[in-house]
Amino acid sequence: MIAFGGNALLKAGQKGTYQEQLANVRSTCHSLMGLVNKGYDIVIGHGNGPQVGNALLRHEAGSKQFGLQSMPMDFCGAETQGSIAYMIETAMEKELRAAGIDRNVVSVVTRVEVAPDDPGFLNPTKPVGPYYSREEALSRPGQWREDPAGRGWRKVVASPKPIRINNIQIVERLAREGNIVVTVGGGGIPVVKDTEGFKGVEAVIDKDLASALAALTMHADEFYILTDVPKVYINFHKEGETALDSITVAQAREYLAQGQFAEGSMAPKVRAGILFAERTGGRCVITEAGSLSEGSCGTEIIP
Amino acid sequence: MIAFGGNALLKAGQKGTYQEQLANVRSTCHSLMGLVNKGYDIVIGHGNGPQVGNALLRHEAGSKQFGLQSMPMDFCGAETQGSIAYMIETAMEKELRAAGIDRNVVSVVTRVEVAPDDPGFLNPTKPVGPYYSREEALSRPGQWREDPAGRGWRKVVASPKPIRINNIQIVERLAREGNIVVTVGGGGIPVVKDTEGFKGVEAVIDKDLASALAALTMHADEFYILTDVPKVYINFHKEGETALDSITVAQAREYLAQGQFAEGSMAPKVRAGILFAERTGGRCVITEAGSLSEGSCGTEIIP
Repeated sequence: MIAFGGNALLKAGQKGTYQEQLANVRSTCHSLMGLVNKGYDIVIGHGNGPQVGNALLRHEAGSKQFGLQSMPMDFCGAETQGSIAYMIETAMEKELRAAGIDRNVVSVVTRVEVAPDDPGFLNPTKPVGPYYSREEALSRPGQWREDPAGRGWRKVVASPKPIRINNIQIVERLAREGNIVVTVGGGGIPVVKDTEGFKGVEAVIDKDLASALAALTMHADEFYILTDVPKVYINFHKEGETALDSITVAQAREYLAQGQFAEGSMAPKVRAGILFAERTGGRCVITEAGSLSEGSCGTEIIP
Repeated sequence: MIAFGGNALLKAGQKGTYQEQLANVRSTCHSLMGLVNKGYDIVIGHGNGPQVGNALLRHEAGSKQFGLQSMPMDFCGAETQGSIAYMIETAMEKELRAAGIDRNVVSVVTRVEVAPDDPGFLNPTKPVGPYYSREEALSRPGQWREDPAGRGWRKVVASPKPIRINNIQIVERLAREGNIVVTVGGGGIPVVKDTEGFKGVEAVIDKDLASALAALTMHADEFYILTDVPKVYINFHKEGETALDSITVAQAREYLAQGQFAEGSMAPKVRAGILFAERTGGRCVITEAGSLSEGSCGTEIIP
């Protein structure tokens, strides 16, 4: 199981043209070939932070300019699952072909169940979508918070824990047959049980945690979390900065308790690694895509 | 194989709220239960006409208001595959649960190959996206045509024939195992071969034709095309209007040649039915969703 961020496609500082995004995802897929060449069955989970942010902005703008309905986050998340999966399929297939490897790439739209009483819903913290004036914001449904940098008011949504990944048994089987499978896009479309089935909720599931749950449910051998640094560091950007090669779950917990890892950045990745290593006995590797072809790379978290 | 239009979700005359769309798709899924109850393995293909139109408008508005990149049709089509599949999954699952039936619903992002030299590319006729002034339109890439009703200038794209459906063997197997599978959304994301693999093109593949190709590739027993009339008519809305119960491929061809079926409406459905019946020896039924639970419904096209 490999998880990578939406930033691997839509990079800060770029315009975000279609060609740029395709080139970015191609580069990430090129790096994944290190694992493909080792003969792994592969499942890819990906983020959608920048993409779903843009989707929300487009819905807002479409409402203002053309009177179209603005759709909620679950709908926008589903949109990004389609478009990002399509780009990954296109890019991965080219890499496979260039390497002379005949494997299908298949993408499954994925809903992920969260608990309606997840404590995250009581205190939403994840900012999403456009900035508004105070008046505009408070006249809209949902919870709103003022941006600390003064850019305006922004909706905040919960980031509940994933508890079940829909159709994961199908994803697993397709992967074990040699197909490269794309799933849990953006952490999955968040749904809760209702009286008749499931319904979408305005929330963002952490994509590393959703990927960890996918990995452990499928009994994956290894779980790779790709980020933009080669290893996990303690004292990051401070005196005594040290790259970690291998840490146990207990050490990882200790570092987390010390506040060594930034929230919204390395901390959720380390938590996802702990979940996987502890529950499966397998190893989680946190590294940058470009290092995957090396013999030993990144920081491993082991039981 | 069942194909239904994007209009089954986003109806003319409604605001197009999320709740309306969910209710519409629920109603269509309720009708499909007539086939589920008969024990069929089921694959669903769906259109995306109104949805991809709205996606293009949102991209346009997002570009103007927020400076976001406007993505091309293939990207927008992929977005609608994600969002529509998500709504179908949600609705179909509720219908299954209400009927006490335990079957998974799984949606596969689907690219469909078209030929780069398809004659459709020489003479694009399918209008898509926002209306512009003459000056704005002609300053943009692509081919443009003035709206006959005077609403402005609109991009026209090709409607090439589908020649291969990516991952259709996976769709078939999942369906034959009892999963209800959603595929070829919007006729599929149109791609052509390039030197390295496949790349997206600005085009709209007719969803009935793509569904017919899916149906015949999978050796489906029957192919249902759902529309908003109970049967196919000759002399539709004219003197001598007659509902057809059963026609052969030869009769269907004769009626097409007579211009009995409107282009952009019934004609492509009849052509899709001919393709399926002729190539497989099976029957295609064209009808409205609400009639599916009846013993004999719609107009059948047989070899």
